[in-house]
Amino acid sequence: MAESVERLQQRVEQLERELAQERSRRAVGGGDGGGGRVRIEKMSPEVVDSNPYSRLMALKRMGIVSDYEKIRTFAVAIVGVGGVGSVTAEMLTRCGIGKVKTFLFACHNGKLLTSGVNQLLLFDYDKVELANMNRLFFQPHQAGLSKVQAAEYTLRNINPDVLFEVHNYNITTVENFQHFMDRISNGGLEEGKPVDLVLSCVDNFEARMTINTACNELGQTWMESGVSENAVSGHIQLIIPGESACFACAPPLVVAANIDEKTLKREGVCAASLPTTMGVVAGILVQNVLKFLLNFGTVSFYLGYNAMQDFFPTMSMKPNPQCDDRNCRKQQEEYKKKVAALPKQEAAQEEEEIIHEDNEWGIELVSEVSEEELKNSSGPVPDLPEGITVAYTIPKKQEDSVAEVTVEDSGESLEDLMAKMKNM
Amino acid sequence: MAESVERLQQRVEQLERELAQERSRRAVGGGDGGGGRVRIEKMSPEVVDSNPYSRLMALKRMGIVSDYEKIRTFAVAIVGVGGVGSVTAEMLTRCGIGKVKTFLFACHNGKLLTSGVNQLLLFDYDKVELANMNRLFFQPHQAGLSKVQAAEYTLRNINPDVLFEVHNYNITTVENFQHFMDRISNGGLEEGKPVDLVLSCVDNFEARMTINTACNELGQTWMESGVSENAVSGHIQLIIPGESACFACAPPLVVAANIDEKTLKREGVCAASLPTTMGVVAGILVQNVLKFLLNFGTVSFYLGYNAMQDFFPTMSMKPNPQCDDRNCRKQQEEYKKKVAALPKQEAAQEEEEIIHEDNEWGIELVSEVSEEELKNSSGPVPDLPEGITVAYTIPKKQEDSVAEVTVEDSGESLEDLMAKMKNM
Repeated sequence: MAESVERLQQRVEQLERELAQERSRRAVGGGDGGGGRVRIEKMSPEVVDSNPYSRLMALKRMGIVSDYEKIRTFAVAIVGVGGVGSVTAEMLTRCGIGKVKTFLFACHNGKLLTSGVNQLLLFDYDKVELANMNRLFFQPHQAGLSKVQAAEYTLRNINPDVLFEVHNYNITTVENFQHFMDRISNGGLEEGKPVDLVLSCVDNFEARMTINTACNELGQTWMESGVSENAVSGHIQLIIPGESACFACAPPLVVAANIDEKTLKREGVCAASLPTTMGVVAGILVQNVLKFLLNFGTVSFYLGYNAMQDFFPTMSMKPNPQCDDRNCRKQQEEYKKKVAALPKQEAAQEEEEIIHEDNEWGIELVSEVSEEELKNSSGPVPDLPEGITVAYTIPKKQEDSVAEVTVEDSGESLEDLMAKMKNM
Repeated sequence: MAESVERLQQRVEQLERELAQERSRRAVGGGDGGGGRVRIEKMSPEVVDSNPYSRLMALKRMGIVSDYEKIRTFAVAIVGVGGVGSVTAEMLTRCGIGKVKTFLFACHNGKLLTSGVNQLLLFDYDKVELANMNRLFFQPHQAGLSKVQAAEYTLRNINPDVLFEVHNYNITTVENFQHFMDRISNGGLEEGKPVDLVLSCVDNFEARMTINTACNELGQTWMESGVSENAVSGHIQLIIPGESACFACAPPLVVAANIDEKTLKREGVCAASLPTTMGVVAGILVQNVLKFLLNFGTVSFYLGYNAMQDFFPTMSMKPNPQCDDRNCRKQQEEYKKKVAALPKQEAAQEEEEIIHEDNEWGIELVSEVSEEELKNSSGPVPDLPEGITVAYTIPKKQEDSVAEVTVEDSGESLEDLMAKMKNM
């Protein structure tokens, strides 16, 4: 058995080499290319054409990042390999993330396929279709392949230093949810340690709530991303359980596109999408990831993108003490204890971080949403900065079923919420 | 274990299929660059997996764009196929631009290679290197190929409905400049008509000034883009000759990264770059192109991106009546005549457009730079919105040689300017 696995692995490697050669040959119209590149043991700042890391290591010389090589020590889980997730994965792969593991999880129905080797984890049930060709990353010849397989192949070819692990399942079923939780908790740099960051690049409400439930339970920091159904707005959001508002604390926020909302909400309508909006959202998401992991610049708790007006609001939100997710409330208590145990100055600084996420230009876009407003967030809408609006208002009854029973198949009661949130 | 064997077997089968496909494609000759999908005569809104335009045509149903199919009637020239230009070309290709022609010109030394057929025009002398792998688009197996060849192959495979024309030369030499001017003037939808838009995605000052000179002479609307040497800021700018400030009217504007400028300006230092910043700049550039061509949303005259603070300033600038480029001054006169000939209301509206590029959120970032400030722009810096700064101040003597003799090889006098502007 061990032998056959080894033989199969060798066969896969050989076929990948041949395929890369074949493709490069076709690209030059017959010549020879050699395919991909060899692995690189240690990132070097050397300025030579053959060094794929020279322009990244230059961030140190430029005074932006103090220790760029640290990028290799991080494991990031990406859930959803669609228009935003695939570009997010490509950017992180090109940045050289995850010497050990990166993760891509997906959100739909499909059977479990666990990879034998620890690699960048890809979770998606979906297949590549020609209808996806209006977004970056996938190519027409990949139509029919599963998104995770196609993505894994392309990404491994781009940077063989990054290791991949793919999962082709729906994280919202009970069984898969447990496995998902396990990979978040144990799939870090060293097996048994948690991942450093979870990125939500899914296209529906149920999957977002599932990630929120998992991260609240595990105290796992994550970033959410979304693009509107009309393709002209999007956002990213950083959620640190107990410290900033979780996805269940308040209705999800979206950047208003400032067009007639009635045209958006008709059911059964195919959502629009643009490579531009999705590329910008993936770009600001991965930029936030780099700033968070490599400790430079200001990490945004919320950054919106309104493509119609070129308007990019930022804000931050405290968690809701009345949040329906009990693990969120538990994390809030623990965060309070943590802050209380800090020396006075540090505690003030910690508070400051979430309250005054000021940029140095003194721009008045940053807003603070109070606890009081959050408490009432299912009724009156919180006092949000101009241009940001809630995606919907959760009716009290449904809110309970959403926040408490996310993992279970509460499909019926979520139906209209999901219709509204589809492709958010 | 059984699972991993099964997965490996599936992978082997998949690779064998892909390899067989690749080989048959090459046997056919690969002349159409395809293997991806067949050409589509007419864009359809039909919501089926096999329709690559369904999500774009949905922009009509969503009330964003009134006539999406019009995208096919436009010819766009892209100069420079690097970190921003390649992604820009990919986005436009996926959007289905240019039923007849799109153009990619590049900026460096190299010999002329004209393609036999009229296709998306690619101009670049540069070769793909592993050092480019920290940005989107190119892949390691393309190392050694010319950027235009590699890009053309990939783009044609992605969307065979777009036609390509590639040029592998330096637009700043006298001979190539004439050819470049000719393709701008005559390479539109119908041969003999001008292109609809020129996009500058070059990485140096001289190439930008050359594009500026050409567009001022031809009255050609263009958009400029740039990313800072430290990789954490960028911008796009719309230049309508006679109506908005040209590249010679004022020192080029950049978004300050708010870090020690001294660390940036050391010569001979390899510039840093990030796939995130370049992806965002390409995204906002192509979004502006779509808004401009398809007539939706607010087209930005200047949009900056400061990645450190997630700050996106916008502004607009009137042309400088004392501009050193005589064709800019000529275009200003013609624009004034055009506005004067308009009925009063329309004239006021036309004026309004450039002066009050207000978004509907009442945000105070939009700034107006006066003629007086522009006149003095080589000395005191114009009163710019917070966070925007000039890339450099042109010493009076050099300014003359730059503005008047751009096309000639004025290499020596431009040396220090170029060192500063390298990879802007």
